[in-house]
Amino acid sequence: MRRGSNQLRLADYNQSVVLEVVRRSRGVSRADLQRATGLSSQTITNITRRLIDDRLVRESAPGGNTRGRPSIPLVTDPDGAYSVGVHIDPARLTIVLLDLDGEVRLARQERTPQATNPSEVTAFIADAVDGLITKADIARPRVLGLGIAAPGPLDVDAGLLLDPPQLPNWRDVRLRADLHEATGLPVLLDKDVTAAATAELRSSSEASNTFLFLYLGSGVGASVVLDNQVLRGTTNNIGEIGDLIVDPDAERLEWSGRRGGLAAACVPEALVLQAARVGLLPLPNLSDYVAIDDACTSLCALASAGDGGAARILDHAARRVAVGLGVLVNLLDVPRVVIGGPLWNRLSPAFLPVLPTAVERELVGARDNIQVRGSSVGDRVAAQGAAELVVDHFLAPRASALMVG
Amino acid sequence: MRRGSNQLRLADYNQSVVLEVVRRSRGVSRADLQRATGLSSQTITNITRRLIDDRLVRESAPGGNTRGRPSIPLVTDPDGAYSVGVHIDPARLTIVLLDLDGEVRLARQERTPQATNPSEVTAFIADAVDGLITKADIARPRVLGLGIAAPGPLDVDAGLLLDPPQLPNWRDVRLRADLHEATGLPVLLDKDVTAAATAELRSSSEASNTFLFLYLGSGVGASVVLDNQVLRGTTNNIGEIGDLIVDPDAERLEWSGRRGGLAAACVPEALVLQAARVGLLPLPNLSDYVAIDDACTSLCALASAGDGGAARILDHAARRVAVGLGVLVNLLDVPRVVIGGPLWNRLSPAFLPVLPTAVERELVGARDNIQVRGSSVGDRVAAQGAAELVVDHFLAPRASALMVG
Repeated sequence: MRRGSNQLRLADYNQSVVLEVVRRSRGVSRADLQRATGLSSQTITNITRRLIDDRLVRESAPGGNTRGRPSIPLVTDPDGAYSVGVHIDPARLTIVLLDLDGEVRLARQERTPQATNPSEVTAFIADAVDGLITKADIARPRVLGLGIAAPGPLDVDAGLLLDPPQLPNWRDVRLRADLHEATGLPVLLDKDVTAAATAELRSSSEASNTFLFLYLGSGVGASVVLDNQVLRGTTNNIGEIGDLIVDPDAERLEWSGRRGGLAAACVPEALVLQAARVGLLPLPNLSDYVAIDDACTSLCALASAGDGGAARILDHAARRVAVGLGVLVNLLDVPRVVIGGPLWNRLSPAFLPVLPTAVERELVGARDNIQVRGSSVGDRVAAQGAAELVVDHFLAPRASALMVG
Repeated sequence: MRRGSNQLRLADYNQSVVLEVVRRSRGVSRADLQRATGLSSQTITNITRRLIDDRLVRESAPGGNTRGRPSIPLVTDPDGAYSVGVHIDPARLTIVLLDLDGEVRLARQERTPQATNPSEVTAFIADAVDGLITKADIARPRVLGLGIAAPGPLDVDAGLLLDPPQLPNWRDVRLRADLHEATGLPVLLDKDVTAAATAELRSSSEASNTFLFLYLGSGVGASVVLDNQVLRGTTNNIGEIGDLIVDPDAERLEWSGRRGGLAAACVPEALVLQAARVGLLPLPNLSDYVAIDDACTSLCALASAGDGGAARILDHAARRVAVGLGVLVNLLDVPRVVIGGPLWNRLSPAFLPVLPTAVERELVGARDNIQVRGSSVGDRVAAQGAAELVVDHFLAPRASALMVG
């Protein structure tokens, strides 16, 4: 039910609004803040004083082209707060340390330990996070928390991995509690595609953003951003698109995924199976996602080096992905597709020349063109998004604070 | 960019908020309104006086079980305002007259004239609307406007039908302007699935509603309601799902749709082609949507009467639709599917026993059950939604009115 507005709780809300404007700007004067928020001059003065006292905001050097009394731009204090983001792909572990400017201070990427016991992986992550914070030489109490981006299905509220098909021993793993115990940090768990879409959205300089995010890693998934809102689904498990049929005439692979499905068209395991079948590569151990990922790297390298068989596999994959994207764009009526995830850098040379035209051929409805592009954040997109979700959790304004009751 | 709240324009906004609470209630006292909106007693008194003067709200008899001073429940005045909704399906034309209580005062359904000239259909609609208003014997100046629900693709902002595949002569028809000219009423044009989802949402008594709406008529489409918001897509053409592949092994029909696609699985034209192929029915004229619709009615009647061949076609259709719903639910992570549209009443006896289990078999992710049910509004759902969109356009609060600038 909609409710009228009132003055309760406005102080906290307004402080978050001001901090959000400063965070999203590259320097903003108190007068700018007043214009941007509609708050009074006195309120802005009080709020900015509190934010400066808390070291979340600082005054930068005044701009050069102001007339009369110089206005002092306010910017976030990059050392005011940090967050750590970890992306667990079955093959690659990515860790980033983000400062309050939203800049990645330090990052590292590791092969995900193929341990049969999840607690070994938890310990590995805790060590890596600790190492990154130590190496960055920052004030540890200023680290707001740790965000984890993981493949679904997961229970975000309980902080559980349920039974991710590509992490076969990770059934009902209490990842959030275990990592909180191991690191002492507040921990937030979210789905890989949700984190990735969040980072992609934040990296945009446009006022309004609506796009489909296609995640390509050891698995395939999607997320949707509508009018600057990242959709999550009612169980927080949006974007399971591996079973979307994109090739009714596909051959049957020795593989558990759906024949002709999007996963069978583009995940490393399926690509490697296709390559091994035609003798391009020896078949790796299919229970070792790092080995699969390495074999996929070899396949992509073969294609880049001019191997016709490898290029045909990737071209065919791109055309099947285009069929799937066509279905999703026709359903959701979005103007843009952004593709990212740990596999994207390897596939993009084969995919980018093919996708826009191939997707447009699939379109019905009012739209006759679609923007298809790679993530502007790069292959750390999910880890960075996980770190940004932590910052939002602690600092962002929530519209519900404006409501009574 | 988020902005702080202020007091500008709050009076108009608060008046719409109060009217919305009254509209969504079955009698609400001034004290209830105060609690529900957080507005002051004096503000509520002033606003309700204005609403009563405008005849949008009236005082009903006091409730029986109040103690002390009786509170007088406020309700909408059903005769305070009306709207007309028209749903143009290529085979069936549905017209409803809605009062301010949201009740359908009068409704009629016609076969859509299969005229080659759209202006004949426009004139037919204008006559039918005029006849309905006359028959209802209401104050014409109280009719807020006319809402049209039509198949896409369409240009909502310009009020144009672009080139709906099932209305072959309706290319770039200025439907909104033509109907405004013919009726003198303000006219709003929206997509059939968007209107249908709106009516379905309004008919719900639940506080939070998230569902996929599957529209079955001469064509197939979808709409999505997330947290009580009807999604529309950036060109207002959400839900083109006819090309979603649901049966990779489907036979090729003498038909323009995609082989194995959702449209080929369930639209009347495809069902009738399948029935004619096995000799159940003579093939109707495939450029006459009324003839196709009638043949589909015969097919459904055969199945209900125990004809095994007819039952097999509908059962097969239900199982293919379940594959498509599985893909959509896995993508969007919604807990409920609602099915409606002019074809639904005929298909539901064959579809409802099959769908829930068949959809659940398709689910991956955290969800292992899904609610599948028929529209609670019935086959007038899109026409009713079009009428409700008109009321909202004129009377509903818009959150943006709370923002500065």
